[in-house]
Amino acid sequence: MRGYKKPTVSIIGASGYSGAELTKILLRHPSVKLERLYAYTQSGKKMQEIYPAIDTDIVLESYGGATDSDIYFLALPHGEALKLLPALAEAGKTVIDLSGDFRLKHPEEHLKFYGKEKDPAAVLTYAMPELCHDEIRQAKAVSNPGCYATSIILGIAPLVKNPVKDASVKSVNCSAISGLSGAGKSAKVELSFSEMSGNVRAYKAGMHQHTPEILQALDTDTVDPAFSFMFTPMIAPLVRGIYTVLNIQLEKHLTVSQIREHFREFYRSAPFVRIRNTMTEVQYVAYTNFCDIHIAESSESGTAVIITAIDNLVKGAAGQAVQNMNIMLGYDETLGIL
Amino acid sequence: MRGYKKPTVSIIGASGYSGAELTKILLRHPSVKLERLYAYTQSGKKMQEIYPAIDTDIVLESYGGATDSDIYFLALPHGEALKLLPALAEAGKTVIDLSGDFRLKHPEEHLKFYGKEKDPAAVLTYAMPELCHDEIRQAKAVSNPGCYATSIILGIAPLVKNPVKDASVKSVNCSAISGLSGAGKSAKVELSFSEMSGNVRAYKAGMHQHTPEILQALDTDTVDPAFSFMFTPMIAPLVRGIYTVLNIQLEKHLTVSQIREHFREFYRSAPFVRIRNTMTEVQYVAYTNFCDIHIAESSESGTAVIITAIDNLVKGAAGQAVQNMNIMLGYDETLGIL
Amino acid sequence: MRGYKKPTVSIIGASGYSGAELTKILLRHPSVKLERLYAYTQSGKKMQEIYPAIDTDIVLESYGGATDSDIYFLALPHGEALKLLPALAEAGKTVIDLSGDFRLKHPEEHLKFYGKEKDPAAVLTYAMPELCHDEIRQAKAVSNPGCYATSIILGIAPLVKNPVKDASVKSVNCSAISGLSGAGKSAKVELSFSEMSGNVRAYKAGMHQHTPEILQALDTDTVDPAFSFMFTPMIAPLVRGIYTVLNIQLEKHLTVSQIREHFREFYRSAPFVRIRNTMTEVQYVAYTNFCDIHIAESSESGTAVIITAIDNLVKGAAGQAVQNMNIMLGYDETLGIL
Amino acid sequence: MRGYKKPTVSIIGASGYSGAELTKILLRHPSVKLERLYAYTQSGKKMQEIYPAIDTDIVLESYGGATDSDIYFLALPHGEALKLLPALAEAGKTVIDLSGDFRLKHPEEHLKFYGKEKDPAAVLTYAMPELCHDEIRQAKAVSNPGCYATSIILGIAPLVKNPVKDASVKSVNCSAISGLSGAGKSAKVELSFSEMSGNVRAYKAGMHQHTPEILQALDTDTVDPAFSFMFTPMIAPLVRGIYTVLNIQLEKHLTVSQIREHFREFYRSAPFVRIRNTMTEVQYVAYTNFCDIHIAESSESGTAVIITAIDNLVKGAAGQAVQNMNIMLGYDETLGIL
Repeated sequence: MRGYKKPTVSIIGASGYSGAELTKILLRHPSVKLERLYAYTQSGKKMQEIYPAIDTDIVLESYGGATDSDIYFLALPHGEALKLLPALAEAGKTVIDLSGDFRLKHPEEHLKFYGKEKDPAAVLTYAMPELCHDEIRQAKAVSNPGCYATSIILGIAPLVKNPVKDASVKSVNCSAISGLSGAGKSAKVELSFSEMSGNVRAYKAGMHQHTPEILQALDTDTVDPAFSFMFTPMIAPLVRGIYTVLNIQLEKHLTVSQIREHFREFYRSAPFVRIRNTMTEVQYVAYTNFCDIHIAESSESGTAVIITAIDNLVKGAAGQAVQNMNIMLGYDETLGIL
Repeated sequence: MRGYKKPTVSIIGASGYSGAELTKILLRHPSVKLERLYAYTQSGKKMQEIYPAIDTDIVLESYGGATDSDIYFLALPHGEALKLLPALAEAGKTVIDLSGDFRLKHPEEHLKFYGKEKDPAAVLTYAMPELCHDEIRQAKAVSNPGCYATSIILGIAPLVKNPVKDASVKSVNCSAISGLSGAGKSAKVELSFSEMSGNVRAYKAGMHQHTPEILQALDTDTVDPAFSFMFTPMIAPLVRGIYTVLNIQLEKHLTVSQIREHFREFYRSAPFVRIRNTMTEVQYVAYTNFCDIHIAESSESGTAVIITAIDNLVKGAAGQAVQNMNIMLGYDETLGIL
Repeated sequence: MRGYKKPTVSIIGASGYSGAELTKILLRHPSVKLERLYAYTQSGKKMQEIYPAIDTDIVLESYGGATDSDIYFLALPHGEALKLLPALAEAGKTVIDLSGDFRLKHPEEHLKFYGKEKDPAAVLTYAMPELCHDEIRQAKAVSNPGCYATSIILGIAPLVKNPVKDASVKSVNCSAISGLSGAGKSAKVELSFSEMSGNVRAYKAGMHQHTPEILQALDTDTVDPAFSFMFTPMIAPLVRGIYTVLNIQLEKHLTVSQIREHFREFYRSAPFVRIRNTMTEVQYVAYTNFCDIHIAESSESGTAVIITAIDNLVKGAAGQAVQNMNIMLGYDETLGIL
Repeated sequence: MRGYKKPTVSIIGASGYSGAELTKILLRHPSVKLERLYAYTQSGKKMQEIYPAIDTDIVLESYGGATDSDIYFLALPHGEALKLLPALAEAGKTVIDLSGDFRLKHPEEHLKFYGKEKDPAAVLTYAMPELCHDEIRQAKAVSNPGCYATSIILGIAPLVKNPVKDASVKSVNCSAISGLSGAGKSAKVELSFSEMSGNVRAYKAGMHQHTPEILQALDTDTVDPAFSFMFTPMIAPLVRGIYTVLNIQLEKHLTVSQIREHFREFYRSAPFVRIRNTMTEVQYVAYTNFCDIHIAESSESGTAVIITAIDNLVKGAAGQAVQNMNIMLGYDETLGIL
């Protein structure tokens, strides 16, 4: 590759947990050059001051509209990317947005779940590599999936996107446990060690913003879906990881090994999805870009029990974003994240 | 109460976590006298040597068949109570067994889930105070419910035992997270701090031994129940607590407030069940005998989302056992555990 | 005790962790009646709303100067008790202050360590029951020791207050690890679960406000002490507990058993100090009012290695405060806290 | 580097935590090829079965004396390397031993601290790169330092190896907190999550096997050292990391900035030692090969307070071992570990 100049990368919103994870991955990436880190309140500080485990001399800057990098990752609070992304897209940059801003197709749902108005046109390719590899490859700007959404969609998609004959999905009951890094780097009593050690807490039961995202990604109507969908998110005393239990009721009984083979076939060219014969655990995927899926025994005929595990900051955010970048740049999908 | 002699209590199996919790509660109980602690491998040691936080001089003894106390708690590994309890019952003692030995009515299910043959007659009153207060009051020997079973049954019972008109239960999808003390005080790599910190792990999906116990307690056939029942237990990095999410599909839609009032009415004389308007958390019940229940918002019409929390060692074991003792002795149900 | 009316108690500053622990202990105390709970930002709420594990109907009130209770506990941020305590003392109330406001004798040290001016007269009996039982018994208002100070003073006092002949203390090197509840119930990024899980952090090395408190309690000059004193506090990922390692250099070598017997003799009438032959651990004292002390093997002749453990919220705050109340009221010292 | 064949590597003892960390690092290393993994009880399994987060197809083999790789890492329980290493050294292999087998020069100390006899000749270059870079570069077989030893030696060495004029070290008081991975992947009740969550425990106070290793590395007599040395190791509820507090008494007072500059100068060519102006924390070094050192304020004239932090599995074991390999092979010291 003599003479080849690596494309340059900037991260806007580098000081949060997803931004830090992106920084760590991109610094090690063999085929891009991380150039600039932007942050709001922390600008002026060296990234390493805030995250001493990350070995870099890059100083956090305040973002003023620069377009001098080839690739932009946006890891901002919901609402911010809506303002910044258009100019970057206009300038022909490769853009990966990690927020929820460009995910939902229906502005009224965006308003309901994110509390903000948005233009109906503010929708980007939903960049879940296992489901829409080709669209991602052709896109210049994409929307990186949410963390819960990733762990849930990957556990349902084979049965919905390519249903087994006569065994379409009737209902999905889902519980998911997230590590606390999912709540961001924030100063809240209820996220303090003293409150969360030894604790479990459900929240937004029945009304998490990833629900319409999941249904939309599964090509069903988000208001009147083809199958009923129940989702209860919980936080527990761990930092990283999402552990998801899906009870999927099917029109026809399928054995565990039938389902397993169906999943293996569906994900045969997905390098980061692993169908495990034995139980999966969060520690098996922590600090990796893998999504592990286990088909468990079910006590009810006709209901599949699917258990998935991801690292919310990697496959659920920064890792998947780099996976998408790799695809968009025509690189090997696993570059720098295996 | 001048001249009144407090009944005396022995615990057989005092060195495990449930036995220790029983010891702690009974030492503080105002109306019984804890007299003897029995253990196997640890006999000869002072209880306080093993659990220095428990202030007592009682020495652990090896159990040889003594019947000199008035009340016996059995906190033994599954299978042991089957051998010891008959003689204690024969001797007219008040007995509370915390194991699974006397819970299941069908020997074939006991064999399937506990791996042991048992006599069809080896069944005792299932001592869940909120459901069968009167039977417990009249019993001399009872079987204390399992920890998961407690957290799950209390979240379903109002809708099954006293169904709302036309709204009978069609299906129950249940996930529950348990603290690691539920696995006992044991030397296993997979329970070590290094393996479980930051980890979540499901186990026995679809085949936990509490499944038939739950169905039986809800008066339905355990093989062909009146409603479908799915249960996935998980362990997470906490010591105490069970946090349970129940998606209960009903024949008819009920509003959150209808369900809440129905639960309030059902548990109106249950001092340890609290129907919370706001979300429940494990920390709200840890070290208490409460079972907290919250009726969450549901995204699906006709499906109730019920979230319950207990301390597995208290309401899920030792606390409930003392609650049962109180009832059996005609004491106030809350004595020593509020 | 027919006809005996229990003294009434109020807690000012009930919504923090020490206040909550006080509430829990006092609700169970057999010989006082908890009547009022005062708080600032949370006033108007039921205590049980904030701490659902505490079973009480008391509503938090805003404190406006009431003196209708017999006993007052002040569990306020440093600086607040200076304002409120004088009126309570004036009114002849029994007062136990848990803050640092009335501990230091020298206003210039108070200014240096607490950042606030104070009157030289603002000093109360330093209420460490193991050292000054009689003064506490005769006092109407006392200052409850700090948490680190308790764990450290109890580990040194026998060698300083009643030195072994020719073996006076030359130097003390001390490290102590505190649980995060010691930092209070507060919204800070650096106390969040995500930042503190898997982390250890020293702070205020060489300049913690408990240093002069410790020296003063050991009857030595706080600026030019009779022995050198080094103290490094740390926080680690636990909620409760202080674990302290003291290397105490003596003028003469003493064997472990000599030191142990000296400590046993010194604390022979202290019901909450336990001299352990085997190693102590935080879990042995968590949720108790015990201070455990172990004399460890030392690799250096002439240096004693003393390890102490307490629960920072119990013996380090609320439990010791109730122990002091018991003494002040002429009750058995252990009432309600054993 | 066309035509260059990467040297091949084997790990003997790959199934423990250090072996797994070595595997992870070496798989990513750009200039060696990890070829074989040996283990005892787990042989026959794929490494990924045991550690699913590690992406490799290598199968664990039973070691039978093979010498087909160029480089051997030994990550075995103490005592095993003594048997295997001689043949590998004989065969001219590059060998890095992570055990304590070849560290201590005096067989009687080895016997005392490791409970095993050994030949006086069984001593290898003590491979602490910051202290003996040249010896390591010329060695074929080296002994990798212990984890506590690394964190302690690096915090003292600048003051002992290159003392400031008139400020030689009189005494060192050291406390260190280790993550539980330091105890290995083992099935012990006292290492279980239920026992260690919320707990701290000191152990081997005054008699840890790293004490003679530390003194030896600091060129002083291990029985009658030039300065007194006290060390108390503790475990706390974290998985990775060693956090060390050193109180170092000097013959002459040095200011914090004098000490800091002296440390900076001493480590000027050490890429993994960082002298931090602000406090260090375990999270700043976790999953990295850095040793962070902070010179804290001291309340005593003439005593330096040095705080160091490392990841026990990286800089304290596998990372440092690879750093040593890099030096031995003439590579950039940081290759694959930055």
